[in-house]
Amino acid sequence: MRSLHLAGPEDAEKLLKLQSDFHTEIGIDSDADHRLQAIAPLLDGSPHGAIWLIGPRRAPVGYIAVTFTWSLEFGGLEGVIDELFIRPKVRKRGMGGEALSGIVKSLAEAGVRALSLEVDMTDDATQRLYRRNHFLPREGYQTMTRLL
Amino acid sequence: MRSLHLAGPEDAEKLLKLQSDFHTEIGIDSDADHRLQAIAPLLDGSPHGAIWLIGPRRAPVGYIAVTFTWSLEFGGLEGVIDELFIRPKVRKRGMGGEALSGIVKSLAEAGVRALSLEVDMTDDATQRLYRRNHFLPREGYQTMTRLL
Repeated sequence: MRSLHLAGPEDAEKLLKLQSDFHTEIGIDSDADHRLQAIAPLLDGSPHGAIWLIGPRRAPVGYIAVTFTWSLEFGGLEGVIDELFIRPKVRKRGMGGEALSGIVKSLAEAGVRALSLEVDMTDDATQRLYRRNHFLPREGYQTMTRLL
Repeated sequence: MRSLHLAGPEDAEKLLKLQSDFHTEIGIDSDADHRLQAIAPLLDGSPHGAIWLIGPRRAPVGYIAVTFTWSLEFGGLEGVIDELFIRPKVRKRGMGGEALSGIVKSLAEAGVRALSLEVDMTDDATQRLYRRNHFLPREGYQTMTRLL
């Protein structure tokens, strides 16, 4: 897919701007230092995740951040879509779905076994996007978390 | 914690036996080859996860498998408890909770930011175990997955 670019350290500034817009839109109060610390390892080639810019590399209109975990069930790597953002002005043009298709193809070729995400159960638009792209809800399970 | 041992390649046989008992108990139909392939990288030091034996190393009574992913929200590694098993004969002695406490302490010291798991919403006993150990449910979200 031509409009999907693996982000490297040189893309940090553009990415942080998009991420700031995303976090403002969904009401997350994050500061730039924390965000840079969180994305830097992924831009530097960490095995724990990767971020792709969506659209022209010099003027991206969004990004998709995928982290990797291991699945005993699937016997291999599982990707998790941690963040997916498209700038409001260019929405409803299918760019989110196109980016998802590109990521699915790329990860499948790399041997990743499954791709997951956590969706807000009241967010119908996002659920529809993922259902259209063949993601199925895992009914009857709930995530429990302890901060360390 | 004395009764928690990081499993290495030499522990594969004992671990596969315990895992076979676990999968039989919860009704997962997994074969030994698939299971060995799934645990081998974690025993070999993969950055994507680790498995600890519970009890005496030569005669373990259970195990806990933790995989690692990256969290943009937490700005660091997040552990996920993929499997936790205690042999039926030694249950109700607090060994699960003791293992959890040991893992939490060890991961926190290693800089891991959070520990999560997916729990069956009808499994009250397991939910109580994790609530007692300060895990909080993430209400209103659902996992969606696409196999690749």
